[in-house]
Amino acid sequence: MAKLEAWQMTAVGEPLSRVSREVPALAPEDVLVRVAGCGVCHTDLGFLHDGVRTRHPLPLILGHEISGHVEDAGSRFASLVGRAVVVPAVLPCGECDLCLSGRPTICRAQIMPGNDRDGGFATRVTLPGRFLCPVPGAGEDPDAPIGAAKGLTLRHLAVVADAVSTAFQAVQRSGVRAGDLAVVVGLGGVGTFAAQLAAEAGAAVVGLDVDPRRLEAAGGLGVGLALDPRSLPARELRARVADFARAARAPAAGWTLFECSGTPAGQQTAWSLLGYGATLMVVGYTLEAPALRLSNLMAFDARALGNWGCAPELYPAVLEKVLSGRIDVVSHTALKPLSEIGPVFDEVRAHRSDRRIVLVPGGEEAA
Amino acid sequence: MAKLEAWQMTAVGEPLSRVSREVPALAPEDVLVRVAGCGVCHTDLGFLHDGVRTRHPLPLILGHEISGHVEDAGSRFASLVGRAVVVPAVLPCGECDLCLSGRPTICRAQIMPGNDRDGGFATRVTLPGRFLCPVPGAGEDPDAPIGAAKGLTLRHLAVVADAVSTAFQAVQRSGVRAGDLAVVVGLGGVGTFAAQLAAEAGAAVVGLDVDPRRLEAAGGLGVGLALDPRSLPARELRARVADFARAARAPAAGWTLFECSGTPAGQQTAWSLLGYGATLMVVGYTLEAPALRLSNLMAFDARALGNWGCAPELYPAVLEKVLSGRIDVVSHTALKPLSEIGPVFDEVRAHRSDRRIVLVPGGEEAA
Repeated sequence: MAKLEAWQMTAVGEPLSRVSREVPALAPEDVLVRVAGCGVCHTDLGFLHDGVRTRHPLPLILGHEISGHVEDAGSRFASLVGRAVVVPAVLPCGECDLCLSGRPTICRAQIMPGNDRDGGFATRVTLPGRFLCPVPGAGEDPDAPIGAAKGLTLRHLAVVADAVSTAFQAVQRSGVRAGDLAVVVGLGGVGTFAAQLAAEAGAAVVGLDVDPRRLEAAGGLGVGLALDPRSLPARELRARVADFARAARAPAAGWTLFECSGTPAGQQTAWSLLGYGATLMVVGYTLEAPALRLSNLMAFDARALGNWGCAPELYPAVLEKVLSGRIDVVSHTALKPLSEIGPVFDEVRAHRSDRRIVLVPGGEEAA
Repeated sequence: MAKLEAWQMTAVGEPLSRVSREVPALAPEDVLVRVAGCGVCHTDLGFLHDGVRTRHPLPLILGHEISGHVEDAGSRFASLVGRAVVVPAVLPCGECDLCLSGRPTICRAQIMPGNDRDGGFATRVTLPGRFLCPVPGAGEDPDAPIGAAKGLTLRHLAVVADAVSTAFQAVQRSGVRAGDLAVVVGLGGVGTFAAQLAAEAGAAVVGLDVDPRRLEAAGGLGVGLALDPRSLPARELRARVADFARAARAPAAGWTLFECSGTPAGQQTAWSLLGYGATLMVVGYTLEAPALRLSNLMAFDARALGNWGCAPELYPAVLEKVLSGRIDVVSHTALKPLSEIGPVFDEVRAHRSDRRIVLVPGGEEAA
């Protein structure tokens, strides 16, 4: 019987604790994935430090941004054994009214690893087999080169499970098109990809962040104007963005804003940029409730759209953008050993890293 | 040369002042409308009392909810002379990129009477002729019965110009359908019609208001559950609405909320009812900025859509609903003499009236 090694959350604010256990027998609809990589998301920190509650009671193994190989499968998914896969962060049931009506991301029977059940900060993870996204061209070695982008491996593709795919769905829902103006607030894990995807869609892109390293690197994301929103009063910030839009021949109305910071300050910055016909994509998460003049949506005939995860049906298209090299994942990802999960969480929490960190199992079982 | 008598706003908080002037020669694209009725909207009070700024400098004749007869016309609209019309509260230019791309309500050259130029609290008003909505079956007498509904006259149809049409566009944009749950927060001028229109679309409708008279009358709007949101903690309110949804066999997800109160408390109530896949239509206006957990849009994969006015192309359909009696305007409207505009504004501001008040000119020119 297979074993798994993992770090699990036991209580808010407590260090993750190492566990070792046997993998239970698989249900017909489940598969066992040997983890190649699992990305660290601010959602994980929200659970561990900020009191955001996991839907499954504690203790729980966190981690919802998973790539790996299907090692074993229940009867329904035997054909997946041996395949390299990206695991959508939100796995809907595929059968309820909401799924059947095209709303899989709000399926009430959805499984989010590391929230509804044990997740990917582990050597192995049991998951529903439905909707796992096979990776074309991947072999057995998680460290082998894959796709057209230099340095890309299956381990890096963990970030496709959430950061890239969430940004992809948000960009798609926003309707942003060639010639439009897009503003990305927060060039972190998700914002990095929202900016790239908006630029790839042909938009002129403004990037706002408080981290000078991210602002310096923004050009590589296709960002044409990078600013620290704290450096300017709201009115001036708006004027600078409007100047940029004019220079880029983008319209003065109908801006598309991506709030990816998940901070009250970032949300207020994004709100201050709402104008006529604007679309604000709410992608980041915070428990806080900033003061917002909601009526601006009415006065500007604007809209704010929340985005939770990404529908499984979109994953092949997301993956193709990464494998083809049109979206750069490698430069924005750092692989670190899973055994360093404690210091890595601290690093992410302190915003010391300017890359998405993917934790990589290795040697745990021998230890 | 025609004359007009009017009450104009001179400064914030000052009483409206009576003016009498000659109507200037009409531009080719303008028409002169003899006012049958002009509805009093909280937007007018926002200008007069709350410091919301009119786009045209003061002094300005307020009033944007106008019905009347075209009495004279510039060369482009000669065919309209003699026609009874409803005047869309937002008159786009019809020619700019935004108009041509289906976004007329954010046209930057739009004319809103009583905001961009003199409005309808007058015996006559000069307006762009384009997009005025002719009233089928109306004769010369503004007090003659019209349509299938008992007591309906051209004067009542003033409320179609904004209150009914704004609610109509909001209901249409929301996508609310038969079998859905709709919640209308604020059963005032616009909410009255949002509730009726949602019920007519086949939704089970909850109405929330703080005025017991409005709650008592809510049944007549098709409201199946009427509650004062102040009477319950947010969690219980939510449970009551969920119980009602279950009893009505409406889904537990995908609720449609109409914020029509234009108050911070109403906005917070509406926000507290956001759930999975919810749509919040932001229809009311306030300058205030309540604390809102914006991230709930993300967590619930929900959306908030602002609604400004109504596209002119929708007016014939709105008018048909009123003329056919499917939407009841008469019970929710009170006609009062224009000369009582001062006390009427006080009455509306103090929420003493439970009906939309339409000011009706009469005798001003003789006086």
